[in-house]
This record gives sequence, structure tokens and C-alpha cells, in this order.
Amino acid sequence: MNVVLGPNNYGKAETRLVHVRRDGPEHELADLTVSVALAGDLDGTHLHGDNSTVLPTDTQKNTVYAFARDGVGEIEDFGVRLARHFVESQPSISRSRVSIAEHGWRRLGPHSFARTGEGTRTVVASFEGTTAWVVSGITDLVLLNSTGSEFHGFVRDRYTTLADADDRILATAVQARWRHAGAEEKDWAASFAAARDALVGAFVDTHSRSLQQTLYAMGRAVLGVDGIVEVRLSLPNKHHFLVDLAPFGLDNPGEVFYAADRPYGLIEGTVLREDAPPPGPAWSLAG
Amino acid sequence: MNVVLGPNNYGKAETRLVHVRRDGPEHELADLTVSVALAGDLDGTHLHGDNSTVLPTDTQKNTVYAFARDGVGEIEDFGVRLARHFVESQPSISRSRVSIAEHGWRRLGPHSFARTGEGTRTVVASFEGTTAWVVSGITDLVLLNSTGSEFHGFVRDRYTTLADADDRILATAVQARWRHAGAEEKDWAASFAAARDALVGAFVDTHSRSLQQTLYAMGRAVLGVDGIVEVRLSLPNKHHFLVDLAPFGLDNPGEVFYAADRPYGLIEGTVLREDAPPPGPAWSLAG
Amino acid sequence: MNVVLGPNNYGKAETRLVHVRRDGPEHELADLTVSVALAGDLDGTHLHGDNSTVLPTDTQKNTVYAFARDGVGEIEDFGVRLARHFVESQPSISRSRVSIAEHGWRRLGPHSFARTGEGTRTVVASFEGTTAWVVSGITDLVLLNSTGSEFHGFVRDRYTTLADADDRILATAVQARWRHAGAEEKDWAASFAAARDALVGAFVDTHSRSLQQTLYAMGRAVLGVDGIVEVRLSLPNKHHFLVDLAPFGLDNPGEVFYAADRPYGLIEGTVLREDAPPPGPAWSLAG
Amino acid sequence: MNVVLGPNNYGKAETRLVHVRRDGPEHELADLTVSVALAGDLDGTHLHGDNSTVLPTDTQKNTVYAFARDGVGEIEDFGVRLARHFVESQPSISRSRVSIAEHGWRRLGPHSFARTGEGTRTVVASFEGTTAWVVSGITDLVLLNSTGSEFHGFVRDRYTTLADADDRILATAVQARWRHAGAEEKDWAASFAAARDALVGAFVDTHSRSLQQTLYAMGRAVLGVDGIVEVRLSLPNKHHFLVDLAPFGLDNPGEVFYAADRPYGLIEGTVLREDAPPPGPAWSLAG
Repeated sequence: MNVVLGPNNYGKAETRLVHVRRDGPEHELADLTVSVALAGDLDGTHLHGDNSTVLPTDTQKNTVYAFARDGVGEIEDFGVRLARHFVESQPSISRSRVSIAEHGWRRLGPHSFARTGEGTRTVVASFEGTTAWVVSGITDLVLLNSTGSEFHGFVRDRYTTLADADDRILATAVQARWRHAGAEEKDWAASFAAARDALVGAFVDTHSRSLQQTLYAMGRAVLGVDGIVEVRLSLPNKHHFLVDLAPFGLDNPGEVFYAADRPYGLIEGTVLREDAPPPGPAWSLAG
Repeated sequence: MNVVLGPNNYGKAETRLVHVRRDGPEHELADLTVSVALAGDLDGTHLHGDNSTVLPTDTQKNTVYAFARDGVGEIEDFGVRLARHFVESQPSISRSRVSIAEHGWRRLGPHSFARTGEGTRTVVASFEGTTAWVVSGITDLVLLNSTGSEFHGFVRDRYTTLADADDRILATAVQARWRHAGAEEKDWAASFAAARDALVGAFVDTHSRSLQQTLYAMGRAVLGVDGIVEVRLSLPNKHHFLVDLAPFGLDNPGEVFYAADRPYGLIEGTVLREDAPPPGPAWSLAG
Repeated sequence: MNVVLGPNNYGKAETRLVHVRRDGPEHELADLTVSVALAGDLDGTHLHGDNSTVLPTDTQKNTVYAFARDGVGEIEDFGVRLARHFVESQPSISRSRVSIAEHGWRRLGPHSFARTGEGTRTVVASFEGTTAWVVSGITDLVLLNSTGSEFHGFVRDRYTTLADADDRILATAVQARWRHAGAEEKDWAASFAAARDALVGAFVDTHSRSLQQTLYAMGRAVLGVDGIVEVRLSLPNKHHFLVDLAPFGLDNPGEVFYAADRPYGLIEGTVLREDAPPPGPAWSLAG
Repeated sequence: MNVVLGPNNYGKAETRLVHVRRDGPEHELADLTVSVALAGDLDGTHLHGDNSTVLPTDTQKNTVYAFARDGVGEIEDFGVRLARHFVESQPSISRSRVSIAEHGWRRLGPHSFARTGEGTRTVVASFEGTTAWVVSGITDLVLLNSTGSEFHGFVRDRYTTLADADDRILATAVQARWRHAGAEEKDWAASFAAARDALVGAFVDTHSRSLQQTLYAMGRAVLGVDGIVEVRLSLPNKHHFLVDLAPFGLDNPGEVFYAADRPYGLIEGTVLREDAPPPGPAWSLAG
């Protein structure tokens, strides 16, 4: 039997970094979870335990903290700085991927903050050769429309019992990633805010006949943001079932719902510009 | 060996209820997780499997949904309504406890909402005889001060290696419960908002020499809210350790931190008015 | 307004300790999560930020690791050693509580192990004055009977829709704690194994007409273990609902079930010897 | 701006199915979590809310339960049955993927079981045209060697502080997936058992100079199982750090460790037969 090593990568996952910028009258807080994955000439360690091309994952963690000494800034820039560093400084590493989640805090005072839960900003930055790619995104943004959602006209087969719905709750936890035409420096904060607003605006404003229709509208809206060429969305359908109160002599005109945990629908799709350039490795790796 | 049945209770836990109030131009949303626990004459089912005094937990769930048909209102009132119902309608039930967590949503439009994560409002309502007790609270409120916190002057023994800290990050996830002098109807929303503001304000404004000092200040502040007589706080010390960057030739003047998961300090304490009336059963059961 | 400090405690929670005993041909592994809580003369730190009576939680963590240098042994003994130490060595500390969870590993070889998931052994040891108390227990032990469980003859009110069940699945995740007559040294491993076997045996062998009946049988069985005087059980009813396959032209003779997450029944009760001595502080603190 | 719909799929995720086989003197239990994803001609629902090609996810859930009426058998067969059904019965669906996790239970008696935690068996079955593909796997299998692991000879750069390790704990939570040359019926249970034993055996028997070396040995071992042509492994390095007890006047000869949560190393790699046929869609979709 001839056995070979296929694609592989390694790195330090979930390094928790909090950075305080103290150079003004108010502190600025950045709270990140950073994961690094490196690929390249790593046959030796797999086949013989020869670690001479392996930069330890402990070193990768140290690098995250050391780079933060110069400040974090926008996570797209911080991700690219790190991703570039590993490829450029390590002869054995040909490709890197740095994934960052930025946890939100709301200012309470000059040096005080409250953790917020309305979505976590994310980035996947990758570097290969001399090129960087950036995929921005958001997770854990939970949205709900209490009306303006229907679902009917669907296929009925032997196993279908679902009734038509003319007015249902539509709720989801948005997981979205979008790639940019290039990774050149730009106003990433403004780009993120615009993409986030586009997602939320399309969810709120779309009269929905399926979660797929809402997904497409959300993706289309994000493509209106300058420089974004492709959007990938994963939208769980967080079911809210109308409770049957008839056994208790009560009607239920769309007021009392059971919020279910599992199972849930899961709608996943990609929306892109027809003229989108081909994606770099960060895209296929972005999950 | 003579064996006897000691204290016991049973009920339906974590019923997920979403209520939409549709009677105005804008919908109002209430998103609750409701747990019921009942105690009373339940020897028969334990000793002989005689269920003639057992109201099924399935019925308790149905009751939660049926009562929501009349609207939810403030969770203190909804909790007392439910707690009273089980005792008054079931001869075998002498004491009830209804615990509710209200998950926050921020309005995005007339019928649209985003889930927020800045603390979950809670209540434990209990009923016994003809009396109701109410314990209000908040959980998962994560706060951080990036300065204004010290820790020194502590006991040093053989196992102490901790250095004095003159300026550290102080962060916690507030879990607070407070009991009211009585359970008569009042403006629970205003009371909760005032208690929450008092907790946050005291955390922000206290120059802290220990998390215990901050805890006491937070408790004392809540007692300034009309009708609140006792506060119980459980505050994890979410450690943020300054990273030693010296091996990389870098200083670290309070800027780069490692946010640790485990272990964590845990500070728990009660602050009360000297003239507080004795607590009812909801207090000892409030956890 | 006169405000006073009520009951309070502090400590280091969830210190993760793995100990390898290397003195024989095979290694022995102990994998513990240890939480310490101390109470005593702590007014100064709460009221004035005076930490002169505060042993840092960091020191408590160090102590856990340093004590492990002499070996861990049974968690009851390790818990009492630690609990006693803090009270005896710290003039300001009058009462301590040490909670330990021991995670199970199955031997694969002389130095190799696989993590098991059939229940986690626990202990809460407390110390006050010159006395130790020990509460042993188990959590996360998930058991299921696929027959031999009924539920009928219950109360029916306006909100009851549940049908009688003559043959249902009964499943639970056992959380049990039991206290011993004394904390003197004994064969804790044998005692734990006997208590665990008693719980499992009673669950398996009881033809159940309610989960309460099963709970009482389980508690009674544990009291048959030498030196155990009281048992506290918390048993979620992990509902398995028979799926209605009639719309698809199929019967369902007790074969196809939906395993629900929430809500769930929760049955809690205490079973004790009539002549049980009064419990120490570890009992009320054991949760 | 011309916008187009890219790759997309939808389905019901995490349907919880428990099946009891009652046709012998002992019951047989199958406890599955089933997720379905379908792709095909779904432009209408995305672009116009036209659901005429959409089989509801609710129907997919019903189908899972209805198919279970005939028994579950091996999850590879059950997955293929379901995956084939959706493509063959729905003109609009051209590709399907069915992911199943089988939760383990240990027999306690003829009708009694305890949930085990030593790894969850998984499958991803996909169907397209007239062909099925099967990817089997295991998750949550936590393994530890208390010796026989080294790590040295690695790259040192400016950010490297890690010391050489001659004898460390090596621990991981195995996530493995392997694809079969074909999806024809075979003894899936025996194949799974052999693959699982190969993974465990290689972990135990490999004297490791890096987790990568162990990964490769584990993959190579699985390829020794008949019909398996490619293995993908994702191995977190669950760090156990030796605690420095020197400040307390104690040595620590490899006995007392701190088990860290985050960050952790993450080693991912693929090992395959040189003559492996090209993979089907289940492979790239298997995550």
C-alpha cells in the first residue's frame, strides 16, 4: 500500500487578546479571538517527526501578542499583517490563514465598557506568494420579524404535513461572510458598518415568501457596498410555532409562540457579482 | 433501616415562550424562558407511584402558554400570576416557584427586532399560603473597567506568588438578584431599570481596591432603589493578565492582555438593609 | 438608610488539575476541576478595600497545585485536606468549601487513556471549627429505559391535554449528592462505586409509574451503602415523544421517537435515614 | 450591477431520532442526530419567492422519522437511503447530503442503557445522479498519553520562547473522517470498529515527536482497513502545562499539570492511498 500525505495545515487556535489603547482621554478597547493556520513544507514532521520546518504554535501565539503592541486597528489590517508575517518570515510556510472574531463592547465611560451581543465581527485573512485576500463577516446576529413572512406554494409529497403559512414569525441567526475585490487598505470599519446595515435593512424590509428569498435580498444588498464582490450566507430558520390554544377554549391570533431549539431549517447560499474576480484561498477556507 | 422522603419539588423547566402583542401600530415582543417548580403533598407518587396529586409538568407548560394569551406584561406580574395559580387551583400543592428569564430584543422597525446581549432580566416568584414573594435580577451582564482597579495589601503565605497590582483590568459577568419588601403591584419595569443602572453606575464609578469592594458598592447602590431590601451578587473575576513582552524586546505599559477562561475568581456576597423584613421562600430558592 | 454586609464568600473556581502518578509500571491519571470558596472576617475588603485578611484566589490556585505534589488520592480526601488547610492556616477564614469534579478516563495501555462520559464523580468538602463534612456525588450520568415506565392516574384540569402512557421511554441525566455520617477516612472509592451501582441498579430495576417513584427508589438504594445518611437527587425528565406516523399511513408501535431538548420535566427530591444526624454546612452549600 | 445566485443548499438540521427495535428479547437502541441538505433548481424561491420546487424542511424531518419505521440499521445505509430518496423523488433536487451523528449507549440490561462518551460515530452520505458516496467518521474521542511524547528541534525565531520538551503529555480530541472506495453495501459496523481501533492503536503506540507525526500514523493505520482510501484528521493539541512548583520549594518531575482550555494547537491533515479514486461531493462537503 502506497500512502501519501495530502493537504495539511497547523496553527494556534483561539488566542484571546484584549488590547487597551491608552493614548487619549478615553481608552479604546479591542477584544479579539485569533486563530492561525499555516501550510507549506511540512512533510518532515508528519513522516519522520523532523520539526526543523515547524514554527511552534506557541510562537504563533506570542506573535499575536507581540504584534498587538503596535496596536490592533481594524481586524482586516491586523489579520493581513499577521498572515503576511508568517509567510514572509518562514521559508517553509507558503500559505497562511488568520481568522479573527472581534467581540463587541459598548462604551459606558472613559474607561468602562459593557459587552454587547448584537453580532460578532469576523475576518479571515490569507496570504500566499505576495498576495493577501480578505473575507469579512459577521456571526451571531439574531434577527426577527414578527410579521411580513409567508410560506406556501411548496412541493407536497407523501411525507408533507406542513400547512400553508400566510403570516409567520421569521427569525434567524445571521452568519455572513463577504469577500472584497482586493485586500488593499481601505476604511474597513465603514465597509463593515455598511455591510451590516445592508444585511439588517434587507432582512427588515423584505416581505418574505421564503427564507431563501430573504437570503438573496440580504446578499444582494451587501453587494451594494463598494468593493464587495461575493457574499456567502448561512441562515438557520429559528422556528417559532404557533401554540394551539383551542383545547383551553382560547384562540391564538398570532400571539403565543413556542420557540424551538432543534431541529431547525438551514438555508445556505452565495450571491455574487457576475463580474467577480476569482476568489483566493481565504474564500474556500472561510467555512 | 427507616427511610423517609425529605424536601422535594417537581415541575416543567425551560418552557420557551415568545409573545407578540399586535394591538398597536407597532408589535411588542416578549421572549421568555419559564421554569415552574411545585411542592406539596407528593408522598404518594414517590412512595407508591400514585399520581393522584400530580399535576403533569406537561400541563404546567400548557398553563404558561394559555396564561400568555392574556398578555405577558412585566415578568414579575406574570411570574406571580402563574405561581399563585398553581397553589390556588391544586389542593395538593402548597408552594410554587416560577423562574423566568427575559431575553432582550432591540427594536429595528415596527415589526422587526435584533437580539441584544447586555444582560438578561430575571425573576423568581414564589407563592405559599396567601402570600407571594418576588426576587428580581439580572444575569450575563458583562462589564469591564480598563483602569481604576488595584489589588494589593493582601495576605502572603508560602503559596503566594501574586504581585501587587496598581492598575489592572477589572471585568465581571454580573449575576444579581434582589428582593422587594413586598410583591404588591408596582412599576416593575422602572424598578428593574433603576436597579440595573445602579449596578452599572457603581461598577463604573467605584475606584476598586478589590472586587469585594466593588461588589459591596454595587449592592449598596441597588438598595437605593425604592422597595428593594436585599441584594445578592455573584461576580466572577474575569482575569485579564498582562502579557510579558520583554522576551521580544518590547515593553507592555498596560496595553496587551490575555483574557483567561479558567480558573477565575468568584466573589459572592449579600448586601441588605438593616431593617429588612425576613425573606420568603423565593429567596432561599433563588440560587 | 442603614446598610449591612450579609453572608459572603470568595475563592478560585474551576482550577484544572491533571496529576500523573509515575511510581509504578503503569501511570495513574487524576483529572480534576477544583473550586474553592472561603468565608470569614472579610468586612474590611468589602467596606474599605482593606485586603489584609484576604488570601488571594491566585494563592488558592497555587495551593491546589502544590498539594497535588503529594498525590491526589480519593477526591474526598483531597477536598478535606484543602478545606482544612485554608481554615487552619488563615486566622481570618472560619469556613471553607472545596468542590471537586473528577473526570473519568479509561485505561488503554500503561500510559494511555480515553476520556469516558458515563458520569462525573463529585465531592463537596467543607471545614469549620475543627470539623470536616463530605458530600459525595455524581453528575452527567445519562440513563434510559426503553420500556417498564408508565404515567397515568394524574390530576386533570382545564389545561391538561396529556394522554395516559402505559409504556413510555424513561430517560434522565442523574445529578445526585449524598452525605456521609462522618468525614473520617474510609474507602471512598468503594463507597462511590457502591453508590453509583445502587443508583444505576434502582433505575434499571424499578418498574416506574412516575419519575418521582424512580427517584425515591434510587435514593433508597443509595442509603443501603454503609455510612450514607442522606441523598439529594435532581432528575430531568428527558422526554422522548412517540412520533405520529399515521399521516404517512404507518403505525408506530413504540419504535420511533423524537428526543426533545426543551422544555423538560425536572424532579428533585431528598431521601434520608430517619436517624440521620443533622447536616453540616457542605450540605446546604452543595447546590 | 449584475448579481447572480451562486452555490446554495437548504435542509433540516439536527433532527433528533431515537429508534427502539423491539423484535427480540432485548431492545436495540439507535440514537441519531440527522441533518439533510438539498441542492438543485432553487432559483425561483431565491429570486421570486416561488416555492414550487421547494420540498419543505418540515417534510424532510417527517421523512427521517417515516424511514426509521423500517429500522435504522447502520448509519451509512440509513444515510444513503435518505440521500437517494430526496434526489430520486424530487425532480428539482439534483444533489443531497445527509449527515448523521450516532450517540453511543452501553447496554445495562435487556431494556436499559447508559449514554457513553467515548466518541460519536458519524457519517456524511451524498447522492448525485445515480451515485452515492459515503464518508464515515468519529468525533469527540478524547485520548491522552502521559508519556512517550517529545517536541524539540523546531524553528526558533524572535518570538519563540517555548522550551524543548523531552517528555510531555499528549492529548487530543480526535475528529476523523474517512472515505470509502465505493458506497456498495458492506459490513459498516465492522469497518467502523476497525477504523476506530486503528486510530486508537496508532495514538497509543506511536512514540511522538510531534502531533503531526501522530496524525500521520493514525491516518496511515486507518488506511489499513479494507476499502478506506482517504482519511482527514483534525486534532486539537489539548495542552497540559507542567506547573512550576519551585516557588513553593517543590520539584515537579512530570506529575502536576495545568490542563488549558484556550488557546490550543490545531493540527489538520489528510492521508490517502496513492491510488485513491477521486472523491465525490460528500468529501468536500464533509467539513
